[in-house]
Amino acid sequence: MHLIFVVYDGMTALDAIGPYEMLSRLPGATVTFAGVTAGPVRTDTGALRLVADRALADCDAPDLVLVPGGPDVRAQTSDTALHAWLRAVDPATTWTTSVCTGSVILAAAGLLRGRTAASHWLALDLLPRYGAIPSPERVVRDGKYVTGAGVSAGIDLALTLAATIAGPDVAQSIQLATEYDPRPPFTAGSPRTAPPALVSRLRANPGLVMST
Amino acid sequence: MHLIFVVYDGMTALDAIGPYEMLSRLPGATVTFAGVTAGPVRTDTGALRLVADRALADCDAPDLVLVPGGPDVRAQTSDTALHAWLRAVDPATTWTTSVCTGSVILAAAGLLRGRTAASHWLALDLLPRYGAIPSPERVVRDGKYVTGAGVSAGIDLALTLAATIAGPDVAQSIQLATEYDPRPPFTAGSPRTAPPALVSRLRANPGLVMST
Repeated sequence: MHLIFVVYDGMTALDAIGPYEMLSRLPGATVTFAGVTAGPVRTDTGALRLVADRALADCDAPDLVLVPGGPDVRAQTSDTALHAWLRAVDPATTWTTSVCTGSVILAAAGLLRGRTAASHWLALDLLPRYGAIPSPERVVRDGKYVTGAGVSAGIDLALTLAATIAGPDVAQSIQLATEYDPRPPFTAGSPRTAPPALVSRLRANPGLVMST
Repeated sequence: MHLIFVVYDGMTALDAIGPYEMLSRLPGATVTFAGVTAGPVRTDTGALRLVADRALADCDAPDLVLVPGGPDVRAQTSDTALHAWLRAVDPATTWTTSVCTGSVILAAAGLLRGRTAASHWLALDLLPRYGAIPSPERVVRDGKYVTGAGVSAGIDLALTLAATIAGPDVAQSIQLATEYDPRPPFTAGSPRTAPPALVSRLRANPGLVMST
């Protein structure tokens, strides 16, 4: 099974690395990090470079594609080379997936028309611009399209997918191997549970998280 | 505040990227990924390269050091260049931290003698070899030494540290921005909660996770 993790300048690292850490442990998985061009990309903070080992155009037909998000939604909705590649490979994938605003990329590429999708909670209202139906759920499956909420949701998305692809025993073994027994010190991870003042502050200044 | 995330060939990516995604959002944080030599390292699966932007020897005195783990514990306990650097900078750090078997590296470098530390559940029994006291907790603080359990525990470790460093409002804002509202589809993330047969299987074949 060939999995392609898309990388690009300005992406959020954990969007891709969370699910990579889970899905790369699937029996028979072959994982490739790929970008519009091969070589390093710099993530959104400016502090980290990940390497695209291959150019997307040079990748074999993937069974699974995962598209991470990032704060610069304007760039993501106008990246025609990535969109064109996604449109080209999507008909033959078994799974087309995204984390965070990666769903906005899939939607802007025209792949989520009429489909329900998750995204970062601050980006959900962008999805209808491209004909997608936003959902506040953490992991959303609509046919072969599996989309996750913001940043850290990719881990839950990947374990859900691992169970569907390889069964619950494999998914649980991956969870045990990566000791995914989360204990957040606060219950502030969703606009439904965080202190309202913090939610309002991020809504008023989404530039801290993303620039639309 | 200068944070150094150590990278090396064979490391587990999420060990570093989870806490990086949280701690890089601290106000005033300057983050550097650094290795014994500058340049790309290949992570444990062979499928991903991260770039060390600088050599450790060229980094200014860090306020915080984070050491990730990886499956090849034998290499980690004999990496004298990394150990020497850790011993050199540790006296001036505010926080010396690790995720997963990163604590075995700290311990092998001689920094955890008489201290309580977390590690991957399969590696806890390695800590006493170096005078450290193993703890099954997910995040352990002993003075300025903060150590996390396996792989995904770095996210909880980082939010705990963020609250200590910058206060609970900042930590909760980071949690909300990264939508860290975990919903694992199974409760298999710890040897205490996973199906016993899966725990036994990983114990019998730890090579799936690490080679000691």
